[in-house]
Amino acid sequence: MDSVPDWEVLRPLARVEVASCADDLVGLLPDADILFLWDFRFGQLDVMLPAARELKWVHVAGVGVDAIVSPALASSGVIVTNSRTVFDDAIAEYVAGLLLAWVKDFSGTWRRQAGCMWQHRTTRMLKGQRIAVVGTGSIGCRIGSVLNSLGATITLVGRRSGTHPELGRIVPSSHLTEIASQVGALVLAAPLTPLTEGIVKRATLAALGPDGYLVNVGRGALVLEPDLVEALSAGELGGAALDVFEHEPLPSRSPLWAMPNVVISPHMSGDFDGYETALMQDFAQNLRKWLVSGRLDNIVDINLGYVPRAGF
Amino acid sequence: MDSVPDWEVLRPLARVEVASCADDLVGLLPDADILFLWDFRFGQLDVMLPAARELKWVHVAGVGVDAIVSPALASSGVIVTNSRTVFDDAIAEYVAGLLLAWVKDFSGTWRRQAGCMWQHRTTRMLKGQRIAVVGTGSIGCRIGSVLNSLGATITLVGRRSGTHPELGRIVPSSHLTEIASQVGALVLAAPLTPLTEGIVKRATLAALGPDGYLVNVGRGALVLEPDLVEALSAGELGGAALDVFEHEPLPSRSPLWAMPNVVISPHMSGDFDGYETALMQDFAQNLRKWLVSGRLDNIVDINLGYVPRAGF
Repeated sequence: MDSVPDWEVLRPLARVEVASCADDLVGLLPDADILFLWDFRFGQLDVMLPAARELKWVHVAGVGVDAIVSPALASSGVIVTNSRTVFDDAIAEYVAGLLLAWVKDFSGTWRRQAGCMWQHRTTRMLKGQRIAVVGTGSIGCRIGSVLNSLGATITLVGRRSGTHPELGRIVPSSHLTEIASQVGALVLAAPLTPLTEGIVKRATLAALGPDGYLVNVGRGALVLEPDLVEALSAGELGGAALDVFEHEPLPSRSPLWAMPNVVISPHMSGDFDGYETALMQDFAQNLRKWLVSGRLDNIVDINLGYVPRAGF
Repeated sequence: MDSVPDWEVLRPLARVEVASCADDLVGLLPDADILFLWDFRFGQLDVMLPAARELKWVHVAGVGVDAIVSPALASSGVIVTNSRTVFDDAIAEYVAGLLLAWVKDFSGTWRRQAGCMWQHRTTRMLKGQRIAVVGTGSIGCRIGSVLNSLGATITLVGRRSGTHPELGRIVPSSHLTEIASQVGALVLAAPLTPLTEGIVKRATLAALGPDGYLVNVGRGALVLEPDLVEALSAGELGGAALDVFEHEPLPSRSPLWAMPNVVISPHMSGDFDGYETALMQDFAQNLRKWLVSGRLDNIVDINLGYVPRAGF
């Protein structure tokens, strides 16, 4: 996130001090009640926490809170919220587009066009595809709904079993490799936690198979990246669309850049035009709720590392 | 269509003679009750019609019947049917994929990937886009439904006014340029008839505008191709995804091939894996109905040039 947020919307609600670097923050944090982290990648909260004597609430302008959660934060009593739901529609559209581009072989079409090559061929349909979505938060569920409305059969994969009101059975992630062997595509929209880190290994990718497709819009470290490179190189996996990576920006030496069956995008799947304003309004709404009632929406369970799903 | 159809499914129902070229057909047509045109581009029916003394029914294995309709056919009393509905889902998916690729700037992503360039940016959403779909047949309506389910606001454009039960008001095509000025994308899924030929002119494209997008999955000649080239070159139109062309294959000298904001595909939007079998089954079902009851589904109004919509 390189954009500069518009803090003005918050000034009628609170005294706003803007830290433009970590050093600024060190000076401001001892008096702060609330910390709004605009950069969801900020990773130095832990060392600053002891000095943040007044801190009651940390808001992350994003969904994944993996950069800040820690045992120290969990035991501090500070509440953490995130921008749950802000990116749902944009990411679901992005994933639908990637999967349609996959079944319709758009990259093959563009390659042929570059060579002025008219070559009719048949392509697959998304309708009837079996697709597993890992992550049962608001993003994963929206992805599932959109793909379901396009005729795909969705299996949601979560930490524990359950039943989604629209999409049906949620399979525990301990069965991921088995699920991967039953679907055409695997979409990762899970938070990065100690339980999900490296959850997609070579065996999972091999189970997905030479016609299978991986889409990652969650966090890069959900996948063992060396395993992914090997599975793609060996033809064990058909292809992948990756928006997130273990190290971002993806290093230029990564072999993923040049693989013809891989789509690389720069962590942008959720970032629709105007998302900065939407993030700010989302925070302002929660801030108003806090000021009026002392209550908050979208509270992260710091031990789990995400906002737990309710009702299913 | 270069594939060879599997006629075996028809043999229990009728005596089947296969013409592999026009000369074969000249010999077979005088005794034929039914003509199944596997190649929807076949354009020599008119001259053969006087000799086809027993001919009662011509079936086109496709949706557009522009290659065969004529005053002579209209006055002959021969019934024409097409493969209406067979391609609906595949084309709707294809169009949804093209439009998602447009709003998400997938081509920009692929271009950057080719240069190992990590460049975050925001992109548009399909949700909230206003999109006009020209053509109120089963394909146009399915495209509209799918885009509507993705949150776009759809205006259907047809020969005459009406109301679609799900998508609302149908605007007559005489208002096309006005409609083009109000939408972000224009999707062409209309039959080619004397009334629709060249319906999209430079003024229509200019009304669509420098941020606007044209998708053509109908027939190439719906668009004045020189006007399209000029509008794109002049920046009057933002971009286009074209699956059909005035002359197919698109000649290699066409400037459309090399335009960075144009996607060229080889008349394949409807051709899902297995479509040949689906076309044959569709015909077999109509043949069974004919043998049992003398009635037929999907009868083309030869004067209109398509199967008229019913009920709206």
